[in-house]
Amino acid sequence: MKKNLLLFALLCATFVAQAQNPSDEDALFIRRIYDKALTDSRAYAWLEHLCTQIGGRLSGSDNAAKAVEYTRQMLDTLGVAKVSLQPCMVPHWERGNPETVVALLDGKIQRPLRALALGGSVAGDVTANIVMVKSLAEAESLGDKAKGKIIFFNRPMDKTQINVSAAYGGAVDQRVAGASAAAKVGAVGVLVRSMTTELDDNPHTGTMQYKDGIAKIPAAAISTNDAEWLQRQLTDAPKTTVRMKLNGQWLPDAPSNNVIAEWRGTEFPDEIITIGGHLDSWDVAQGAHDDGAGVVHAMDVLHLLKQTGYRPRRTIRIVLFMNEENGGAGGKKYAAESNEKKEKHLAAIESDGGGFSPRGFTCEAMPEVFVEKFKKFSAWSAVLEPYGITLSKGGSGADISPLKSQGGLLIGLRPDTQRYFDIHHTANDVFANIHKRELELGAAACTALVYLLDKYGL
Amino acid sequence: MKKNLLLFALLCATFVAQAQNPSDEDALFIRRIYDKALTDSRAYAWLEHLCTQIGGRLSGSDNAAKAVEYTRQMLDTLGVAKVSLQPCMVPHWERGNPETVVALLDGKIQRPLRALALGGSVAGDVTANIVMVKSLAEAESLGDKAKGKIIFFNRPMDKTQINVSAAYGGAVDQRVAGASAAAKVGAVGVLVRSMTTELDDNPHTGTMQYKDGIAKIPAAAISTNDAEWLQRQLTDAPKTTVRMKLNGQWLPDAPSNNVIAEWRGTEFPDEIITIGGHLDSWDVAQGAHDDGAGVVHAMDVLHLLKQTGYRPRRTIRIVLFMNEENGGAGGKKYAAESNEKKEKHLAAIESDGGGFSPRGFTCEAMPEVFVEKFKKFSAWSAVLEPYGITLSKGGSGADISPLKSQGGLLIGLRPDTQRYFDIHHTANDVFANIHKRELELGAAACTALVYLLDKYGL
Repeated sequence: MKKNLLLFALLCATFVAQAQNPSDEDALFIRRIYDKALTDSRAYAWLEHLCTQIGGRLSGSDNAAKAVEYTRQMLDTLGVAKVSLQPCMVPHWERGNPETVVALLDGKIQRPLRALALGGSVAGDVTANIVMVKSLAEAESLGDKAKGKIIFFNRPMDKTQINVSAAYGGAVDQRVAGASAAAKVGAVGVLVRSMTTELDDNPHTGTMQYKDGIAKIPAAAISTNDAEWLQRQLTDAPKTTVRMKLNGQWLPDAPSNNVIAEWRGTEFPDEIITIGGHLDSWDVAQGAHDDGAGVVHAMDVLHLLKQTGYRPRRTIRIVLFMNEENGGAGGKKYAAESNEKKEKHLAAIESDGGGFSPRGFTCEAMPEVFVEKFKKFSAWSAVLEPYGITLSKGGSGADISPLKSQGGLLIGLRPDTQRYFDIHHTANDVFANIHKRELELGAAACTALVYLLDKYGL
Repeated sequence: MKKNLLLFALLCATFVAQAQNPSDEDALFIRRIYDKALTDSRAYAWLEHLCTQIGGRLSGSDNAAKAVEYTRQMLDTLGVAKVSLQPCMVPHWERGNPETVVALLDGKIQRPLRALALGGSVAGDVTANIVMVKSLAEAESLGDKAKGKIIFFNRPMDKTQINVSAAYGGAVDQRVAGASAAAKVGAVGVLVRSMTTELDDNPHTGTMQYKDGIAKIPAAAISTNDAEWLQRQLTDAPKTTVRMKLNGQWLPDAPSNNVIAEWRGTEFPDEIITIGGHLDSWDVAQGAHDDGAGVVHAMDVLHLLKQTGYRPRRTIRIVLFMNEENGGAGGKKYAAESNEKKEKHLAAIESDGGGFSPRGFTCEAMPEVFVEKFKKFSAWSAVLEPYGITLSKGGSGADISPLKSQGGLLIGLRPDTQRYFDIHHTANDVFANIHKRELELGAAACTALVYLLDKYGL
């Protein structure tokens, strides 16, 4: 039996070696990447410019165009990659200020609610009684009771979820689809509880979609504190009315661009590794965490690899996508052109979870290739674990998901989620809320992963 | 060979079962703990009181006594544990305001430096030229050149360390031992660069120790920005003098207390599991992260276990230690009494790394028992990993380390370190810088670990 056990052990060892376990050399190189990132990153300075010199950059806006030009220049200055713009048409919505949402107590006293129109909402000035519901289904089941009313979607995010992004996923249907669900049964407006687990005064905007063939009614988010107040108020005074006056307008689709920096590989130039974030951001703040952080993470990959003197074997592309927030036109355009050229993305990474302390990467792929790829991928855990980075199955990112059919691995950076929904889509998503080291660690993690993908393939 | 492989597999399975791998039942119970922590924790409210109603609580101060009484009452109110005070004498140092450190340019223009006396510094009013050094050894090698001078310790924390606590450990000798190293060669005062990787304006206090038989000279920390300025200034104008006027004074040792809540075990009451944090904190802020967070983490273990209806098999002790910051009298007293009673601590956990997003526990023990205990301990990873908690070897905590000779496992909670040294020992360690969910996740992690220790032993 001893002999057989030895054989078994040898078989195991062979199997492990085949999985391309990273070497001490890799560990040392990744250490160099982190050293560079924590002493010589450009992410923080670039993000400061993007946030404080440009600001909120919703698709189609002047600021979005400025962000395209600024990042193009910065990438070009690095001098290692061919930088180009990839034109795409984007939806163009504008908020129009001032927007107001007020509760009318006894028909006289006005109590302002802290509110933001949802991105994409039509304008409107409606005053109506409120019907509170907790789900789309409940709204649709209201029947005649919804007629002429403002429907108030008030299902909180589940604060017992450890991953706050998962809690967001479990509540955001109210924001995205609430207006059409309500309009279907005759409502004239929609209020949505803001997407955060916490009780605070910040309204959270975000995209919403109207369904074809259903009336378009105005929709706004109110702060969670105001949602709690309104719920109590409706218990005490069910006849409370709310006036919502929104000014959103849709302009014609506008020309815009993805920004692409391509660093050709020396050995396998046709195997592409893309890393990106999205340039556009909501208009109410500076888009610091969402997704300025992702943009500068991706840009810093190029800078940090250059600083280490690395020459990629495969082709590395930094892609700064336009229009993630309200349409995804940039991601779709990038994938469509890539497919047209019959390109092959070995992997694509997206950083769109903020600039907080990175905790890992999650990944997905077409089922027929996933098991094999995940095995190779997860063998890299050993060299990333000293940096608190875990590799696991999960989602990737909205901009890269149209690449899935190419059969590559789609990967998302996963920063700690605890603080993200304090500021996500609110006026607080500003540069002052960025932590320099945490941002740099995100850039380092992305760079380390790009290095491993480039060196070993998948 | 197939048969042998099967046998091998069975042997493996048996081994795993013996390691007391947690069951689905444990996974469910830990899920309940987290549910309670994220919906019904008392940690945040207790910490608010400790910070905003009491404030900084240096050993021997009135505030320290108030913190003892408040936490005693709160633990008592829970009604499940016997709460007692364990008297101990503590060192009593007071800062005495206003303290000033100014640079004198051309002997005339004064430039104030942002400074804080180190905890334990004697008073003094000295004006002298500056000699900058990067280490204790360099200071001691100055010989006569140090005579009558102020020695400026200016070795930065190593920002390439991922674990910022490790970077702190690599620089803090300057603060702790700098004064005596400088006095030995005739210096009259000491300035120390603040303990943070970042460049900012916050001076960081912290303990320092005089060596017997060496003159006691005044010592203060200056902000990292001012340290950078002073370094440049000394290049331009080496004759720059600094006046440091400090007012610290040592009062007679004062009576104080540890607070202990003991919940007797039903099956193995003689096997003790202790979890604690330290009640005392520096005088310059509210001691929110250091270590109010640890105090309420420990207290919340009792609350959360009670809320789940749990009855411990072993004896669980919540111990709130006094005097971690400048003497460790509480920890020493607790261990001494425990040894005297011939008690057996199965394990002791300390939370003294702040209230940030928890990332794991590290542990240590006497070498002769460590391997065995760590094997059992690390088998619990599976049920903690869904909460982002890893179990690894490493340090535990200053207050519990005197228990090491009892042969139990000593464990430290490890929150994310990236933000800790932004506020550690500065005026910014206030309740406003506490994140509610992150604090609650720390309490949940501690509770889950106490549950596993209680259920399975070690």
